[in-house]
Amino acid sequence: MPVVYVENVNAYEGIEITLRGWVYNKRSSGKLQFILLRDGTGIIQCVAFKGNFSPEQFETLDKVTQESSIEITGKARKDARSPGGYELDVAGFRILQQTENYPITPKEHGTAFLMENRHLWLRSSRQHAILKIRHEVMKACRDYFDDQGFTLVDTPIFTPNACEGTTTLFETEYFDQKAYLTQSGQLYNEATAAAFGKVYCFGPTFRAEKSKTRRHLMEFWMVEPEVAYASLEDTMQLAEGLICFILDRVLTRRRAQLEVLERDISVLERISPPFPRLSYDEAVKRMQAAGSEIQWGGDFGGGDETLISEQFTSPVMVHRYPSEVKAFYMQPDPERPEVALCVDVLAPEGYGEIIGGGQRIHDYDLLMKRLKEHGLSIEPFQWYLDLRKFGTAPHAGFGMGIERVIAWICKLTHLREAIAFPRTLYRIYP
Amino acid sequence: MPVVYVENVNAYEGIEITLRGWVYNKRSSGKLQFILLRDGTGIIQCVAFKGNFSPEQFETLDKVTQESSIEITGKARKDARSPGGYELDVAGFRILQQTENYPITPKEHGTAFLMENRHLWLRSSRQHAILKIRHEVMKACRDYFDDQGFTLVDTPIFTPNACEGTTTLFETEYFDQKAYLTQSGQLYNEATAAAFGKVYCFGPTFRAEKSKTRRHLMEFWMVEPEVAYASLEDTMQLAEGLICFILDRVLTRRRAQLEVLERDISVLERISPPFPRLSYDEAVKRMQAAGSEIQWGGDFGGGDETLISEQFTSPVMVHRYPSEVKAFYMQPDPERPEVALCVDVLAPEGYGEIIGGGQRIHDYDLLMKRLKEHGLSIEPFQWYLDLRKFGTAPHAGFGMGIERVIAWICKLTHLREAIAFPRTLYRIYP
Repeated sequence: MPVVYVENVNAYEGIEITLRGWVYNKRSSGKLQFILLRDGTGIIQCVAFKGNFSPEQFETLDKVTQESSIEITGKARKDARSPGGYELDVAGFRILQQTENYPITPKEHGTAFLMENRHLWLRSSRQHAILKIRHEVMKACRDYFDDQGFTLVDTPIFTPNACEGTTTLFETEYFDQKAYLTQSGQLYNEATAAAFGKVYCFGPTFRAEKSKTRRHLMEFWMVEPEVAYASLEDTMQLAEGLICFILDRVLTRRRAQLEVLERDISVLERISPPFPRLSYDEAVKRMQAAGSEIQWGGDFGGGDETLISEQFTSPVMVHRYPSEVKAFYMQPDPERPEVALCVDVLAPEGYGEIIGGGQRIHDYDLLMKRLKEHGLSIEPFQWYLDLRKFGTAPHAGFGMGIERVIAWICKLTHLREAIAFPRTLYRIYP
Repeated sequence: MPVVYVENVNAYEGIEITLRGWVYNKRSSGKLQFILLRDGTGIIQCVAFKGNFSPEQFETLDKVTQESSIEITGKARKDARSPGGYELDVAGFRILQQTENYPITPKEHGTAFLMENRHLWLRSSRQHAILKIRHEVMKACRDYFDDQGFTLVDTPIFTPNACEGTTTLFETEYFDQKAYLTQSGQLYNEATAAAFGKVYCFGPTFRAEKSKTRRHLMEFWMVEPEVAYASLEDTMQLAEGLICFILDRVLTRRRAQLEVLERDISVLERISPPFPRLSYDEAVKRMQAAGSEIQWGGDFGGGDETLISEQFTSPVMVHRYPSEVKAFYMQPDPERPEVALCVDVLAPEGYGEIIGGGQRIHDYDLLMKRLKEHGLSIEPFQWYLDLRKFGTAPHAGFGMGIERVIAWICKLTHLREAIAFPRTLYRIYP
């Protein structure tokens, strides 16, 4: 007898099949038992008719509990009222484990409790939908770059130096040395872009920020493209294209999950390129007009970003921030050296920064000067300086935080739901 | 004028285009300069005719050095003798940086020197070919699982507990706690398999092994599928299918790179399913016959694996090792409880283990017993035990080390060439 996943039931109409999964919910009406079976690929209603079972068997089925593991055999038939379009007429079943006291019930639970039971919470339909969308977002990123001929070159997690300052680094003993966990693959991307032309890395990154905001995780995934001979404008177009590609994929392939989340899909559907481009100067004026006390020269706080991102229905690209508020490697604008050829992309609906990037300094002397100004020791950056000695050229790229994109697309209130096992200030369990 | 990558030159025959890249090599013959331009996507020979340039310009071109960054304009024409099928007639050029003293020359260099200059070594054709194959292998893994309806669920890097013992863990301060860097996503996969049915994770993993062998890296990438309701046999088939899928992709799409590496392609082409299945018992007998001193009950060393893997032209699946030499979570064979329902896949040509996996214990009491036998504290495993309390079912999966697969496919002598920035016992630079 074929063993079938719920998502493939349509191919087996009228044939006796076996499904294997867990009891998601159950109700009975005298002669009928209705079991919602979930197997991770979908949920199907299985209907057992009393007349087909011994009284003991029917009683057993009546008592089966939420999240019991169960094998059910029977035939699927079309049912227009069912969410998946099919129901299963139960011919037999085998309970593998009768679950007792499953902690997550349909009633409301507090966040701390759900986080403590994250390994089980993932089985609920809302978390399931978010992580299916996460998979789609990550696959879209890879396909977008692969289809354009980028080479995936994974950058290391253990690094001898800090990309954006040393205060927010996780440190580990590495035999007789110290190693730091990467905050970004960018510096390494610059080396590989000179070898492969256009590259991306896509892996976990780490920031030891003592921050409890809804926008921060200690461990998060970033996709980071880097292109040799690219300009700020090139990288802005690449970022815009990526976001549109992801949205299209999710809207096409994960509409059902957006509906589970009760996301207003029309808001996402209205987004199309080109995204508004706003200079930092203009952004500051808009923030001031909206009541912010920001002055030219200051970095945007989360609240400032929200002010901007609430004014637009599509992502906004804010470019040319003052060099002083940005990382040491940012290329100055030749026409206005006090600003950098950089861009942040802010997601709409108040979500704020999802992408940061720009052109990198390609001149050896300027880079050396900046390293010194930032008080960074030269030795661990020797290889990075080498890139400016041996065939340097303008280059640009960006980093996109995956959880932030997912939070925006799914309209989550906190990043912690955008990853299977979030690592927050006080939590590394489960 | 269109700016074109070398790999796309064929679409621009006879049209004036600009290429941007680096001088890979150069020779001249009086009236002609031949510049091999590499841009990361390919290498093309650019031919400059003296009559088309001023004496100063031609002199400049004559003096351009290896790895100088350069823009070249001109028209491409078919040339059957060229590796890419095209040559470019140079109409103009602009040198962005004349490189001085590029450290990696066509002469032989020692490994330590090359590793110290890994950021530049990646530009050489051999390293370029290996990492293009790496990208293909990783993409093949993802496509294989995605196409079969697996959900990618990334597992955390920071963990509160150790999957396979505590001696080889990297540790970090995590605010007021200690966190360990993951050695495997498997335990978490078991949680997500119960939520999504079939899952995989694919990320970096870490082992602090004081080992200098050619088969070990401190940081390496693993792809790990896990399937609810799967048996050992299911997981062996899944592993076999994955390896065949990867080989097919590399042979189809990365043949040129295998040729750069002078790999004997016919050896790879001859591999087809089903792979030989060998019980541990049989494997021990074969090893003994080949001169090993191994006794039943012992784990295989690298040398033992080599003995087996040299006897076959395809990967070999060795199953049912003694439970005692395997991790605490291995499901015992019900017909012979002293052996585990596990499998190691050994690559041929002496490469040894590339995959390890099997069925996991799904019984609560047995798992508890094993945790205690292994001296592991229960508290950090509470969530893992929960999976045996709430709808437990047989399940199986495996982990495949990406660098080991790449080393085998590319026939490398050391894993360090299979990753862009290898982390070995004494090296975290660059």
